Amino acid sequence: MFDKVLIANRGEIALRVARTCRELGIGVVAVHSSEDRESAVVGWADESVQIGPADAKRSYLNIPAVVEAARMTGAQAVHPGYGFLSEDPDFAEVCSDAGLVYIGPPSAVIAQLGDKTAARQAMAAAGLPMLPGSLEPLLSVAEAQRVADEIDYPVIIKAAAGGGGRGMRVVHEAGDFAAAYRETTANAQLLFGDPRVYVERYLATARHVEVQVLADEFGNVVSLGERDCTVQRRHQKLVEESPAPGLPPAVAESMGRAAVRGAAAVGYVGAGTFEFLLGPDDRFYFMEVNCRIQVEHPVTEMVTGIDLVHEQLRVAAGQPLPFRQEDLAPRGVAVECRINAEDPARDFAPTPGLLREFVPAGGPFVRVDTHGYPGYRVPACYDSLLAKLVVWAPTRDQALRRMDRALGEFRIGGEGVRTTAGFLREVIGAAEFRRAEHTTDIVGQVLERRGGPAAGGTGSAQESAA
Amino acid sequence: MFDKVLIANRGEIALRVARTCRELGIGVVAVHSSEDRESAVVGWADESVQIGPADAKRSYLNIPAVVEAARMTGAQAVHPGYGFLSEDPDFAEVCSDAGLVYIGPPSAVIAQLGDKTAARQAMAAAGLPMLPGSLEPLLSVAEAQRVADEIDYPVIIKAAAGGGGRGMRVVHEAGDFAAAYRETTANAQLLFGDPRVYVERYLATARHVEVQVLADEFGNVVSLGERDCTVQRRHQKLVEESPAPGLPPAVAESMGRAAVRGAAAVGYVGAGTFEFLLGPDDRFYFMEVNCRIQVEHPVTEMVTGIDLVHEQLRVAAGQPLPFRQEDLAPRGVAVECRINAEDPARDFAPTPGLLREFVPAGGPFVRVDTHGYPGYRVPACYDSLLAKLVVWAPTRDQALRRMDRALGEFRIGGEGVRTTAGFLREVIGAAEFRRAEHTTDIVGQVLERRGGPAAGGTGSAQESAA
Repeated sequence: MFDKVLIANRGEIALRVARTCRELGIGVVAVHSSEDRESAVVGWADESVQIGPADAKRSYLNIPAVVEAARMTGAQAVHPGYGFLSEDPDFAEVCSDAGLVYIGPPSAVIAQLGDKTAARQAMAAAGLPMLPGSLEPLLSVAEAQRVADEIDYPVIIKAAAGGGGRGMRVVHEAGDFAAAYRETTANAQLLFGDPRVYVERYLATARHVEVQVLADEFGNVVSLGERDCTVQRRHQKLVEESPAPGLPPAVAESMGRAAVRGAAAVGYVGAGTFEFLLGPDDRFYFMEVNCRIQVEHPVTEMVTGIDLVHEQLRVAAGQPLPFRQEDLAPRGVAVECRINAEDPARDFAPTPGLLREFVPAGGPFVRVDTHGYPGYRVPACYDSLLAKLVVWAPTRDQALRRMDRALGEFRIGGEGVRTTAGFLREVIGAAEFRRAEHTTDIVGQVLERRGGPAAGGTGSAQESAA
Repeated sequence: MFDKVLIANRGEIALRVARTCRELGIGVVAVHSSEDRESAVVGWADESVQIGPADAKRSYLNIPAVVEAARMTGAQAVHPGYGFLSEDPDFAEVCSDAGLVYIGPPSAVIAQLGDKTAARQAMAAAGLPMLPGSLEPLLSVAEAQRVADEIDYPVIIKAAAGGGGRGMRVVHEAGDFAAAYRETTANAQLLFGDPRVYVERYLATARHVEVQVLADEFGNVVSLGERDCTVQRRHQKLVEESPAPGLPPAVAESMGRAAVRGAAAVGYVGAGTFEFLLGPDDRFYFMEVNCRIQVEHPVTEMVTGIDLVHEQLRVAAGQPLPFRQEDLAPRGVAVECRINAEDPARDFAPTPGLLREFVPAGGPFVRVDTHGYPGYRVPACYDSLLAKLVVWAPTRDQALRRMDRALGEFRIGGEGVRTTAGFLREVIGAAEFRRAEHTTDIVGQVLERRGGPAAGGTGSAQESAA
């Protein structure tokens, strides 16, 4: 195992990774921007290096600075967390070139799966169920229109280099296609420096269900079950749970097997997530692969009893997975709520500021992952995720009651700081959510019942979320 | 199920019970002394009643005040927690007479098991393994000496009305017996208003292992596995774990069956704990029954996935247990450390005072039960338990590494407040504890290595602990 690992991230995930390192006796190097000097992980780490100013481009996204921090401190490996450099094949490659172990899949696999059309091709070849659509980038409006007409409307145009719900457009009629195509390619060029797009059938009422896989260097791949992440706002997940409620066991198993097959087909190594669309008829379709630990990984941990970061480290150190598929015995139901420093009444505007009061929920079957503490100043320049509240119970109904209790007792207060905690109680209390009949519209519906502003661009599960 | 429950307790256990009530939609009535106005559960409860001054005899032990609070608020049931009135048969009876459901076994069962000789008689009759000793109170020094000579020395003299490690005396030679007998009976009269004592063989190096049982009104009794509570200081447990490390599975199963047989024999109803002494040869002997929820119940919850307070409420409401013995599938290892507001360097003297900083441990597989929060003033007049830190992992080694990590990150600071957290890290890091070869001497041994004051009266597991 490694002696020292650098964590190239911030916030709760940096602390999450640091905790497992500490448990394994691995020294922790934290990197941080000038804005994050008071961050929990900095006080926690064995060593810390300031790698740049508040602007993430010049700190958390600054590859040379991160690699230099690793060199300076003698770290042997780099954990990218999620977001930032976590799915950048260049970063993985630069790490390897610098003699650092990148804790994630090989650079070539990240590159292949990051190109959404290449990923679709690989997964179609591996026999995963796909929505009707193009497997190659569509290089002219004529070709694209022909594909769209063939698969029939509504269709969705997505950027080949996209992901995380950005750079996509739904088209409901043939007559609107050409204009939408031009807009999407232009947008893709702007956002990703790559104009290529592809087209697939659009499912308006699908659910977002994803499978957690773990793979080692020796060809062992296991599925750790699925997560339902249908509750989203502007392509950002708010509530996640495992297992997916109401999913017939045969479908869940089939989805797990599909993910394992897909991971094996591309030589995946490490922890990864296969995202699927689940139609109202319980048929599922491959959407994309996330080549990193997910925000919502704790629900899988609580159900399986497996520490996913520990497995990431183990695999990166060249060790085989310590269990086989048949050794896994998932238990009960876990639910995660993302408590963001945002004001639901002002269209979820971020509410940075000083936390005067911060008392996490506790007690039976409650887990809190947070970098917040009393006196912490929530910065304005990063993601607004402040805490992940995760609960476990034998049944979904008990888990939701527990979540309601835990959301109710979490006390967060400060200058101007608002959170999503109260809003999340409304979501998990909504009748359609309780019945597990919700779709990605649920956030808008709850907001509407509140009489607040409508949810702008709630989007469907197909516009895959972060 | 009940609409409203009164919690006749304070501190972390009051909050613990309140959390499950909240999850079940049960209204919570808190009672508190004048000293506990700022207590977490008071802010948390739906209603609260001040029942007396700081002095527990006039508040938490004041039966008429508690029953009147229940009457005033319309509570249907009373949860006694642990300590205070939780094993007082009179309290259970007064509740019943007042039309309140007492959440615990019937008064007659509490009375029978509270009389340690009556409990020994019942358990011997049920076929539980007993240490050689008397089954009847010994009413004269001559009779007692005859029993002691027969079973051979060392012996221990215990008060029939005792428990919790109070009112007992070890005798190593026949010549010391008579004086010790007189002292113990006089002490028993003083402490419990009852001079009766009994004698049993003394095991110097035994471990303390206990079995959690649940029983309903319909004769169903299940064992939820055992807990090892060998790490003690002056009869107070400091570290508890489940399952008991190194215990051969056949012995663990046999112990579980013995507890179930014992509970069935006396018509036990609710959650209870059968305490056993485990000799170095892995033979075990019945010690006593605790007729209440235990401080250390969370380790059983983490391993079994069962909410013990929920089961207490269910049984008290006249419902059957929702599972049978064969439905239980314990998983992994859970460890609890009691973080007390005490100074280990000053012989564990209580350190009351204002908590300026209070940041609980968090992250994967960590549970915190605490009534502490930033700004809370730890009172001087009650038990010094401030937080229970509980971790889970697939193996004991991983659980202990996790506990070390979690103890290290728990930040508690304030005027004069010291805690046992650092000392507990030394205990769980001790080689003999890691190897699970520790006995009740371990606290003294760790203190000695520290070069601090020797542990006064560490005692053996036989002097049963709270």
